Amino acid sequence: MTDISRDDNQLMSLDDDTLHEECGVFGILGHPDAATLTALGLHALQHRGQEAAGIVSYDGNQFCSERRMGLVGDHYTNPATLAQLPGDRAIGHVRYSTTGDAALRNVQPLFAELEIGGIAIAHNGNFTNGLTMRRKLIADGAICQSNSDTEVVLHLIARSRSTSSSDRFIDAIRQMEGGYAMLALTRTKLIAARDPIGIRPLVMGDLNGKPIFASESCALDIIGAKFVRDIENGEVVVCEIQADGSISIETFKPQNPKPERLCLFEYVYFARPDSVVGGRNVYTARKNMGINLAKEAPLEADVVVPVPDGGTPAAIGFAQASGIPFELGIIRNHYVGRTFIEPTQSIRAFGVKLKHSANRAVIEGKRVVLVDDSIVRGTTSVKIVQMIRDAGASEVHIRVASPMIFHPDFYGIDTPDADKLLANQYADLDAMCAYIGADSLAFLSIDGLYKAVSGAPRDPRSPLFTDHYFTGDYPTRLLDKDGPDNVRQFSLLANNG
Amino acid sequence: MTDISRDDNQLMSLDDDTLHEECGVFGILGHPDAATLTALGLHALQHRGQEAAGIVSYDGNQFCSERRMGLVGDHYTNPATLAQLPGDRAIGHVRYSTTGDAALRNVQPLFAELEIGGIAIAHNGNFTNGLTMRRKLIADGAICQSNSDTEVVLHLIARSRSTSSSDRFIDAIRQMEGGYAMLALTRTKLIAARDPIGIRPLVMGDLNGKPIFASESCALDIIGAKFVRDIENGEVVVCEIQADGSISIETFKPQNPKPERLCLFEYVYFARPDSVVGGRNVYTARKNMGINLAKEAPLEADVVVPVPDGGTPAAIGFAQASGIPFELGIIRNHYVGRTFIEPTQSIRAFGVKLKHSANRAVIEGKRVVLVDDSIVRGTTSVKIVQMIRDAGASEVHIRVASPMIFHPDFYGIDTPDADKLLANQYADLDAMCAYIGADSLAFLSIDGLYKAVSGAPRDPRSPLFTDHYFTGDYPTRLLDKDGPDNVRQFSLLANNG
Amino acid sequence: MTDISRDDNQLMSLDDDTLHEECGVFGILGHPDAATLTALGLHALQHRGQEAAGIVSYDGNQFCSERRMGLVGDHYTNPATLAQLPGDRAIGHVRYSTTGDAALRNVQPLFAELEIGGIAIAHNGNFTNGLTMRRKLIADGAICQSNSDTEVVLHLIARSRSTSSSDRFIDAIRQMEGGYAMLALTRTKLIAARDPIGIRPLVMGDLNGKPIFASESCALDIIGAKFVRDIENGEVVVCEIQADGSISIETFKPQNPKPERLCLFEYVYFARPDSVVGGRNVYTARKNMGINLAKEAPLEADVVVPVPDGGTPAAIGFAQASGIPFELGIIRNHYVGRTFIEPTQSIRAFGVKLKHSANRAVIEGKRVVLVDDSIVRGTTSVKIVQMIRDAGASEVHIRVASPMIFHPDFYGIDTPDADKLLANQYADLDAMCAYIGADSLAFLSIDGLYKAVSGAPRDPRSPLFTDHYFTGDYPTRLLDKDGPDNVRQFSLLANNG
Amino acid sequence: MTDISRDDNQLMSLDDDTLHEECGVFGILGHPDAATLTALGLHALQHRGQEAAGIVSYDGNQFCSERRMGLVGDHYTNPATLAQLPGDRAIGHVRYSTTGDAALRNVQPLFAELEIGGIAIAHNGNFTNGLTMRRKLIADGAICQSNSDTEVVLHLIARSRSTSSSDRFIDAIRQMEGGYAMLALTRTKLIAARDPIGIRPLVMGDLNGKPIFASESCALDIIGAKFVRDIENGEVVVCEIQADGSISIETFKPQNPKPERLCLFEYVYFARPDSVVGGRNVYTARKNMGINLAKEAPLEADVVVPVPDGGTPAAIGFAQASGIPFELGIIRNHYVGRTFIEPTQSIRAFGVKLKHSANRAVIEGKRVVLVDDSIVRGTTSVKIVQMIRDAGASEVHIRVASPMIFHPDFYGIDTPDADKLLANQYADLDAMCAYIGADSLAFLSIDGLYKAVSGAPRDPRSPLFTDHYFTGDYPTRLLDKDGPDNVRQFSLLANNG
Repeated sequence: MTDISRDDNQLMSLDDDTLHEECGVFGILGHPDAATLTALGLHALQHRGQEAAGIVSYDGNQFCSERRMGLVGDHYTNPATLAQLPGDRAIGHVRYSTTGDAALRNVQPLFAELEIGGIAIAHNGNFTNGLTMRRKLIADGAICQSNSDTEVVLHLIARSRSTSSSDRFIDAIRQMEGGYAMLALTRTKLIAARDPIGIRPLVMGDLNGKPIFASESCALDIIGAKFVRDIENGEVVVCEIQADGSISIETFKPQNPKPERLCLFEYVYFARPDSVVGGRNVYTARKNMGINLAKEAPLEADVVVPVPDGGTPAAIGFAQASGIPFELGIIRNHYVGRTFIEPTQSIRAFGVKLKHSANRAVIEGKRVVLVDDSIVRGTTSVKIVQMIRDAGASEVHIRVASPMIFHPDFYGIDTPDADKLLANQYADLDAMCAYIGADSLAFLSIDGLYKAVSGAPRDPRSPLFTDHYFTGDYPTRLLDKDGPDNVRQFSLLANNG
Repeated sequence: MTDISRDDNQLMSLDDDTLHEECGVFGILGHPDAATLTALGLHALQHRGQEAAGIVSYDGNQFCSERRMGLVGDHYTNPATLAQLPGDRAIGHVRYSTTGDAALRNVQPLFAELEIGGIAIAHNGNFTNGLTMRRKLIADGAICQSNSDTEVVLHLIARSRSTSSSDRFIDAIRQMEGGYAMLALTRTKLIAARDPIGIRPLVMGDLNGKPIFASESCALDIIGAKFVRDIENGEVVVCEIQADGSISIETFKPQNPKPERLCLFEYVYFARPDSVVGGRNVYTARKNMGINLAKEAPLEADVVVPVPDGGTPAAIGFAQASGIPFELGIIRNHYVGRTFIEPTQSIRAFGVKLKHSANRAVIEGKRVVLVDDSIVRGTTSVKIVQMIRDAGASEVHIRVASPMIFHPDFYGIDTPDADKLLANQYADLDAMCAYIGADSLAFLSIDGLYKAVSGAPRDPRSPLFTDHYFTGDYPTRLLDKDGPDNVRQFSLLANNG
Repeated sequence: MTDISRDDNQLMSLDDDTLHEECGVFGILGHPDAATLTALGLHALQHRGQEAAGIVSYDGNQFCSERRMGLVGDHYTNPATLAQLPGDRAIGHVRYSTTGDAALRNVQPLFAELEIGGIAIAHNGNFTNGLTMRRKLIADGAICQSNSDTEVVLHLIARSRSTSSSDRFIDAIRQMEGGYAMLALTRTKLIAARDPIGIRPLVMGDLNGKPIFASESCALDIIGAKFVRDIENGEVVVCEIQADGSISIETFKPQNPKPERLCLFEYVYFARPDSVVGGRNVYTARKNMGINLAKEAPLEADVVVPVPDGGTPAAIGFAQASGIPFELGIIRNHYVGRTFIEPTQSIRAFGVKLKHSANRAVIEGKRVVLVDDSIVRGTTSVKIVQMIRDAGASEVHIRVASPMIFHPDFYGIDTPDADKLLANQYADLDAMCAYIGADSLAFLSIDGLYKAVSGAPRDPRSPLFTDHYFTGDYPTRLLDKDGPDNVRQFSLLANNG
Repeated sequence: MTDISRDDNQLMSLDDDTLHEECGVFGILGHPDAATLTALGLHALQHRGQEAAGIVSYDGNQFCSERRMGLVGDHYTNPATLAQLPGDRAIGHVRYSTTGDAALRNVQPLFAELEIGGIAIAHNGNFTNGLTMRRKLIADGAICQSNSDTEVVLHLIARSRSTSSSDRFIDAIRQMEGGYAMLALTRTKLIAARDPIGIRPLVMGDLNGKPIFASESCALDIIGAKFVRDIENGEVVVCEIQADGSISIETFKPQNPKPERLCLFEYVYFARPDSVVGGRNVYTARKNMGINLAKEAPLEADVVVPVPDGGTPAAIGFAQASGIPFELGIIRNHYVGRTFIEPTQSIRAFGVKLKHSANRAVIEGKRVVLVDDSIVRGTTSVKIVQMIRDAGASEVHIRVASPMIFHPDFYGIDTPDADKLLANQYADLDAMCAYIGADSLAFLSIDGLYKAVSGAPRDPRSPLFTDHYFTGDYPTRLLDKDGPDNVRQFSLLANNG
C-alpha cells in the first residue's frame, strides 16, 4: 500500500502511505499468567497499533493498570512491569490513534470505579454516534477525561441503572452505533462484544479451559491456545468465574439480528497473513487476489516485484499465475518503525528511500511489474515508480490487489479526506497512471476481490462484507456526520503535563 | 518542628518530623504574562507544597494545562513550558499530597469540559464530607478519575443545572463542608472562594488593575503586586473580563454568615514569615510566641539555639526577652529537600544528621535552650537533644512555641493518628521530658499563643481561630468521620502507567 | 540464520540466533549537509549494528560529537541533534558491541585532541593484536578510557612522531593486525583505510564531486551518490580540502601487497541484499546459493519456505531451480527488534514465537523445505522445525545456503565458542539432522558457495575470500590468541555513571 | 554575599552573586560501608559543590565508579546505586565546575588503569601550571578525555617510572603548582595530599580505627568519626591495608617546607559554620568578623538584618557587639537551588526576589543595617538595598564582614575578571556606596579579618593566610597566566552525547 493518509503532520513522507487500523484487543480469564499472556497476545497484534499499549488486570482485590506509549515489547516484557499486573484475569489493548490525540490518558483499557465495583474496557473500532453521545453526556453533567469515544461507553455503563455489570455493559453498547470489537473486565467477568454487523473481527480461544478473546487468531497461536470460534456479529459473550473457580460462559444477542458484513480491508491489508479471519486464511486470500489480478490484467514482463511487505503475498500469487519470476526488487529497511521522529526538512526530502530501496541487480533493463496491496493517495506510488525507473527498469507496470478507494471509512480506519484519495483526483485510470508515472496501471475488480476472499462475486443485494471505501455502500447510518446536530468535537484542554 | 507525621513509609526518619500543609493557590486575570506571574507566585508559595505543581491558562480559544511532579522552579521557569501556557488568565497550584496518592492525575488544577465551556479549579484545604459526596456521585453514575476530593467539586459543577459558571461553582461549594481556599478559571472568569469560617487563608491582590488571588501575601510581594484585602470567610469573589476588556469584580456570600476562625497553625508553622495572614505579620507573631514563652517558662541558660528553620523567629524573641544570647548552635543542611529518596537502611540510621548538625563551638560546656515551633510525635526531638548532648552541652532545655498537640486535623493538614502524638503517649510533661531526654521541657500555653498572634487570650465562647489540634474544639461537623455511613475510600485502581 | 551466539545473557532465546557484525562506517567531506547525509548513510547501514550510533563533524572551528545508544532514526533525525553537528565534513558509526561493553564511552567515533589538531576515528572490524598493543601502551603510560580496541589506534596516532595527521594515521594502522575498514576525520582531511587483505568491505562514492566512504554501497544509494569503486585491500585514501575549497584525493599502499580475501559472510548474511560488495550484487549471490543448493541437495517437496528474512533470497533461488512453489510459511514479527528487553522467564519460554509464527494454511499437510542462510548453534532451528511440524507439515526438510561453521571469527564477527557450534557438537550430518528434528538436512558446499558468489569453485592455493569459519584457514596470524604473552583483558573499571 | 561572578550565562541574575568553591573530597579505607559513608560525607560537603558528585570504590577485585550530575542525595542514597559501589575503600568528590564544562566526563573521581593496577583521584583546588602541563603531555602523545586539570595528574601518574603507586603519585604532584587537596585510591592504598602552602583545607579523621580524609571536619561529624588532625601543608599521607587486614599509615613531605597559608575565604564564606578549619571554628570566626566590624564601623540603627545565609553569623556578632536587635528582615526561599534552570527573560527580571524577600514588618520605618559576608561585583547588593527601601526602611546601611576584593583567584575559586569586581570599578568607598544606593557602606579591614580568625593582625612579612583577592599578594607563581608560552586552552571537542 503506497499512499499517505496523514498530510497534516511532519511524519508525512516518512510514515507509510497507508490506511491505519487503530486497535487490537486481547483478554483472558482464569489463568495465573494472565498479564504475561495478554502481553504476548498484544505483541502478536502489534501490527494493529504501534503507538501505545495497555493492560488492566484484577487480582481479586484491586484492579491494576499499566498504560504506556510505545511497543508492547518495550514495556510489557519487563518483569517489574508485569509484577504490577497481578491476578488471573486481564484485558489489553494496542492502539494507533484515531479519535483522540496520543496523550497517555487516551491509552486503553479505560477504567471506571462503579458503585457495583470497577470495570475496564478495551475497544477496537469507531462509533458513528460517538460525538453525538458525548455531547449528550456532557450536557447531562458527565466529565470526560479523554478524547476517546470509548470513554462514552464507560459513562453509559456508569449511568446505567441495571444492577449487574454485564447488563450495564449491554445497556451501554445498545446505545452505540458503528463498528466495534470490545472487551470488558469486571471483578468476576470477562465480557466480549462485536457490533451488530460484525465490521471488526473478534475471535474466541481456549487455553486449558480458560476463555480468551482476541482481535485475530494469530494472538491465540503465539500462546498455543486453541481457536474456538469467531464471536458472531451482534453477540455479547459473558464469561464469569464462579465461587467454585469454574467459569461460566453465556452468550447474548441483545440487538436485532442482521447479516454479518466484515470489513474487507482486514483481508486486503490489516490482518496478519497467518491469521484466520471469518474462517478464511488471510495469506491465501491475498495470494488469490494476486492470482485474480494476473487474470484480470495480464501483461508481458520480466519480473514481479512486491511493494513490501503488504504486496508480497499478492505478488507471489501474481507470479505463480503469470509465470513471471518473483524477485525482491525492493528492499525494506525495517529499522524505520516509530523512529525518524521529527526529521529535518532535509531528511524528509529522502521520503520513501528511508524505508524502501531499489535492488538494482534485479531491475536494471527489466520490464517490472510492481504489485501493491492498495493505493490510497498515490503519492508514495509516484516515488516508488521513480525509484524503480532510476534503478534502470525498462518498463514499470503497477498492479494493485484491491479496487480503487473512493470513500472514507467511519468504523475504525484512519482515512484521508475523500478529495485526497487518488481515485477522486483523476478522471480515469489513464490519468492516474500518468500521474503515477507507470507504463500501465490496473486495480483488482470488486468481484475479483470478493472471489479471492470468498470464492464468489459480490452479491449486490446482500454483500458478504462491508466494502464502502470501494463502493460507497455504508452498512450503517452515520449519525455524527449526517445527523441534524452538525456535531463537532468540543474544544478540549491542551494538556501537556 | 521536630516530629514525624508519616511513619508508614521509608522517608520516615528523613522527612521533617512535621505537619504538612497540602497546598497553595494562585490566580490572575487579564495580565499578558499570566502564566509567568503564576509560576512566580507559586514559587513564593512553594513552602506550602513541594510535591507537584500545575498551571492552567486560557488563551481565548482553549485551555492549556501543565502539571508536573517536583518544584515550580524545576519546570515552570523553562521558556518551552511557559510557551505551552499562553493567555492572559491562569490559575496554579502547589501541592503536598493529602487525600490522594502522588500520581500525576491528582495534580491540580483539575479541569472539566462543561456544556457551557471549560472550568479549571485549584484547591487548598480538605472537605470533611468529601468521601460521602464522592460515594453519592459514583452511585449516580459519575466517573472519578483521581483520588482527590477536589474532583468532587468538579462533578458537582458539571451536574449543576445553573446556566452561569459562577452560579454552578456556588452550587457546588454550597454542598461541601470543611476548610478550603479555592480558585476557579473559566473562559472569562476568575473565581475565588473561602470556606464559611475561613480556616484556610486567601488574599486578594492587584497588579496594575488586574486582580490576583493567592494563599499568602508573599506571593503578591514577589511580583510587586499590591495587597488589597483578605477574602472573607464564606465569600465568593467573581472577576470577569468584559467585552470591552475591563474587569468586573463581584462578591457573594452564598452561605449563612459565621465568625471567622483561621487555622492557628498558619501562624505557628505553615505561612512564610514575611506573609501577612489575617492582617498579622507572621514573623512578628512567631517572635511574640518566643517572647511569651520566655515569660511563661523562664530559665537560666547560656545560649538560645533555634531548631532551624521553623524555630528561628521564636528563638530570636526568646533571646531578646530572656537576655540569653541567640546563637546558631544547629546548622541546617538545605541540600536535603526532596532528595534522599529511597535511602538505604544504613543511611536512614543517620536520621536527623542528614538535615541538622550541631555546631559544637557554641554548645560545648553550655546550658542550651532549644526553641522549636511545635512538637508532633517527638521522635526527632529525641534525636536532636541527643545530638546537642553529644556536642558537649552541659544542659539541654526545650521550649516549644506552641501548645501540646492532642487531636488530628481534618481541614488540610496531614497529621498522624492521635495515638502517635507525643501529647497522647505520655501522662504528663515530666514523662514527655524524660522521653525526649531534656533537662526541662515547656510548651507555650494556648492563651500565650493567642496573645502572641492577636494580643488577647483565647475567648472560649468565641475563639478567634480554630485550634482543634490543641483543644479538640472542631469548628465544623466531621461527616466522613462521624457520619452514619461509615464512609470509606473505594478500593481504587492501582494505576502505574 | 538460526542460532544463538550469546548464551550468557537473558536475551538469549529472544535475540536472533545469528552471527553479529559489529559495525558500519560512513564519512563525507565538503558537503554542507554533512551530518544529515551521514545520518542517512548510517540509517542504510543500520543492519550492521543496532546498538549505538555516533557522528563527529568539524565546522572549521571545532569538532562536534553526538554519540547515542539506540537506532540512528531514534536520535539523528531530530533537528536539534543535527544542529549540534555543524560543518561540511563528518564521519559516523553504527555498532553492535564486540570488544567492549555497551557503555556510551565505547560508542564511536572516538576522538583525540592532538598537538597538530583533533582527530576522530570510526572502525568496523577487529584487531587480532589489539590486547597486545593495549598492554604495551598502558605499560608506556597511556590512559585508556574505553574498552574498545579502536582506542589503541587513537593512542598510536597520538604517539606518532610524524607531523602530518595522515602520516600519523598510517604509522598507527601499520602496527595493527586483523580486519578493518576505518575512517578518520581531521580538521581538513577525511581518511579511509582497509586492512591488508580486505576482510571488511569499504566503498568510495561521490556526491556532486564530494567524496564519500561507506561500508556498503546501499549507503550511497539512499542519498543518491554515485558508486566510484571499492577501496582496495591495504589501501589508504586521503581526501583533503584545499585552501581554494577544492578537494585533493591521494591514495597510499603503506603495506606489502597481498591478495584480497573479503569475508564470505558479507555475502552469506551481513550485507544488505541490494548492496554491491566486491563488485557482486548480494541478492544475486544469495539467490545463486539457493540455486546451487537445489542442485546439490535436491528433493521432492510441496513448498519452499524461507526462514525470514535472511533465508528469503536463497529460498527464491531454490524454488526457481527446483520448481517447488515459494510460499510465506513463516511470518516474521518485525516489532521485536531491540524490544523485549529483560523478558520474564515465562515470556522467554515463548522463544522463537516472539519473532516467527507458522502460517498454517500453506504448511498443513505439506512437505516443507525450510531454507535458511546459515546455522550457528542450531538451537533456533530446533524450535522452528517443531513450530512447522505443529502447524501440520507432513515432512520438514532443511536446506542451509552456506557450509557448516566449525571455527570462530576474530575479524569483527561475534561468534560463540567453538564447542557451541552445531557442527562441532555432532559427529555427522545425520546426528545434526536428528538433533534438529528435521526429515533431512543439507548444507551448501564450500565450492557451491564460491560458485554462487564468484562463479568459480574455491582455489585452495589462493582462495578469493576468507572462509575461516568454514575451513579453519585463517588469513592472518592471531597474536592476542596465540602469542607468547597469553594476553588478557585488564580488569577494568566498572563504570556505571 | 551579593555579587554575580558569571555574567556569561543565563543563570546570571538567579545564581548567587557569589564566589564559587569548586570541590569537596572524602575518602575512607577499611570500612565495610565505605561507599555509604562516603555518600554521607559528600552530603555534608555539598555546600562546596552542587553540580555533580562521584564515588569510586574498590571491592578487592575491581574498581567501581558512579558519577552523576546533581546532588549527592539525588543519587547516592538509592540502594541500587550504592549496591554498584561495593568494597571497604572509597573516595568521593562533589564539584562546582571551574576548569571544565559540566559534562559527565569531567566529574571526578577520575580513574586510570595503570600497568601496576588502577588508580582513582579526586581533587579540590586548581593548578597554576595545569594548561602548561596539559600542553606538554599532548605534545608527548597523551590523549586527554576531560577538560579537567585533574586529568593532568592522572597522566603524570601513568607516565611515572616509579614502581609503587604512592611513589608515582608523589612524582606527579611534585610537578604540579597551585592549590590542592587531593585524594587517591589504589587497590590497597588511600592517599591524601595537600599543596605545599596548604591553600585548600584537608582533615584526617578516624572511625573505629579506619582512616578518613575530608575537606572539612563537618564530614567527619555526620558519620560520628573523630577528628584526628589537619593534613599539613605539603604533606602526603599514605594509608595501606596490609595482608593481615591492619592499616599502616605513613607520612611524607616530598617538597621543600614552606609556611602554611590557608585560603582566608574558607573562613569568610566557603566552609560550613560548624566546621573546624585550621583549628578554628568557622562560625566563631564569622561572628568575630561581625563583632570587629561593629567596632570598626559603628552606627546608630534600629535593626541588624543579615543577608542570608552567608551574612547571618556576622550579623549575630554585629548585633551582640552593637546592641542593635538582630531580626530576620530578609527571608530566603530555599527552594531555588539548582532549579530555575533556563528561566525566561520575564522571570529573570525578578532577579533577587526569587531567592530573597523583604520582611516588611521588621523593616518598615526602621534604620536597617544589612550585614553581608562579602561583596564581589555589587550587582546583587544594589537589588537588595532597593528591596529593603521598597519595604519601607528609613535608612539602609551596609556592613561587609570582609575587605574589598580587588584580585582574581587561581587556586580553585571561581572569580570574575578583575574589571568586574566592585572594588575595581569605583574610585572610592563613597562611589561604591552611591552605586549600591546605601546610606553608608563599610568593609571589614584586613587586620580586622585576621584578628577575627586568628586573634592577631596580619603580619606582612609572613601572613598566616593567603589573602591575594584582597591584597594581590599571590603565594605562588602563576605559570599558566604569566609564563612565556601564553598558554591557552586547546579548542576541544564539543561533545554532546
